[in-house]
Amino acid sequence: MENSHAGEKFPTRAKDVSLLELRQRLAEFACARGWDRYHSPRNLLLALVGEVGELSEIFQWKGEVGRGLPNWTSHDKEHLAEELSDVLLYLIQLADVCDLDLGQAALSKIIKNAAKYPVTVPPSHAATD
Amino acid sequence: MENSHAGEKFPTRAKDVSLLELRQRLAEFACARGWDRYHSPRNLLLALVGEVGELSEIFQWKGEVGRGLPNWTSHDKEHLAEELSDVLLYLIQLADVCDLDLGQAALSKIIKNAAKYPVTVPPSHAATD
Amino acid sequence: MENSHAGEKFPTRAKDVSLLELRQRLAEFACARGWDRYHSPRNLLLALVGEVGELSEIFQWKGEVGRGLPNWTSHDKEHLAEELSDVLLYLIQLADVCDLDLGQAALSKIIKNAAKYPVTVPPSHAATD
Amino acid sequence: MENSHAGEKFPTRAKDVSLLELRQRLAEFACARGWDRYHSPRNLLLALVGEVGELSEIFQWKGEVGRGLPNWTSHDKEHLAEELSDVLLYLIQLADVCDLDLGQAALSKIIKNAAKYPVTVPPSHAATD
Repeated sequence: MENSHAGEKFPTRAKDVSLLELRQRLAEFACARGWDRYHSPRNLLLALVGEVGELSEIFQWKGEVGRGLPNWTSHDKEHLAEELSDVLLYLIQLADVCDLDLGQAALSKIIKNAAKYPVTVPPSHAATD
Repeated sequence: MENSHAGEKFPTRAKDVSLLELRQRLAEFACARGWDRYHSPRNLLLALVGEVGELSEIFQWKGEVGRGLPNWTSHDKEHLAEELSDVLLYLIQLADVCDLDLGQAALSKIIKNAAKYPVTVPPSHAATD
Repeated sequence: MENSHAGEKFPTRAKDVSLLELRQRLAEFACARGWDRYHSPRNLLLALVGEVGELSEIFQWKGEVGRGLPNWTSHDKEHLAEELSDVLLYLIQLADVCDLDLGQAALSKIIKNAAKYPVTVPPSHAATD
Repeated sequence: MENSHAGEKFPTRAKDVSLLELRQRLAEFACARGWDRYHSPRNLLLALVGEVGELSEIFQWKGEVGRGLPNWTSHDKEHLAEELSDVLLYLIQLADVCDLDLGQAALSKIIKNAAKYPVTVPPSHAATD
């Protein structure tokens, strides 16, 4: 199969990926297949929850897992990367159908968190939310 | 308060936001506060699930919601944008501590989906996963 | 305040609680407040996801937690019991509005699992699903 | 295969199912297979999240769904009943390994909610949590 559709071709070299690029590719992908009619906010939200479930299944019987996933096979890492991607792709599409700028919102949230948790405060259990 | 920490300053003009930029800002943010020691994969995964819960709460009593969020107040939209951001920020951090390249993985998943669901096939209930 | 509404009174002695009893109390509770009109399947499902999020938040920064919750305060245990309850209450209501018998379904699933995973098979990572 | 294990036999007649009975059956089930060693609180929580994901997948592309699931096939209803059961079974096991009495906690939460939302208050968007 040749992916001649413009929205689905991109160079194979490693590069920094932007949220806007992913948003555009996903919108083209859905439109080309007529799937955009299923993309209501709550449908996409439930699809996102479904993917978070699949992500959790990967970790469910493992007990604590170290940073960098020591002793995981490359197959397991690839599976994890796919499930993380699925969550991201539905999140981007959900923001899109809600007409929200996810990238700008994420930057704004980091600024807000930086003001809420100044660096001079001693570390605590508090997190970035 | 002045955000003089280098990792937390950025121009206010609208721009395309990259996953790598967010990843770097978040890593700096956590490191500056000593929070990175809490950022094990399963801790971040559960934090992500918590944020998905907050996202769901926004939609829980609304019945079906139309694309573009008709009749939502700007306050409600801002709240939604924050919760979407929180999910994204934990997702990026989870991928980071797993040493996975989320942007590249997302592009690969779109390619894989394009091969799995060619455009010539009639639309169905199937989704982008 | 006196809870004189019949559906909300029950003896304080410890007793075994049935799913049917909880279902009836919850239906009365919602009906008495006119909330049943909000109880569509997807509304209740999203409310359930919201409560699972709150449950996850309790565990999110704790690292691995031992059985019996060693070193947790009684306050923390009560909080956990409340969040577990919230998940259960929405689950029961979701089954109810779907006209499904949750208790019978749960027993059937245990039988099915017993056939799927006979005792003579050596233990594995497989779980009860 | 004969299910001769005592904990997995029960009459087929319809009956009210108690949370304590399910808890006991599940504990026997896990113990007989040596699976209890995997049943730490966070493992069970992530397994629960996984099942909530599967539950969400059933509803994800359906748009709004009416009470009683009009037009659903019996196959779809059975599938839903199984996923609801899976969530319940992990929830009961999670409460069990946390040494919490889920049934009593659920009754207490209903009482607490009844005090928090008296019947005389006009209905609102507020829910049972």
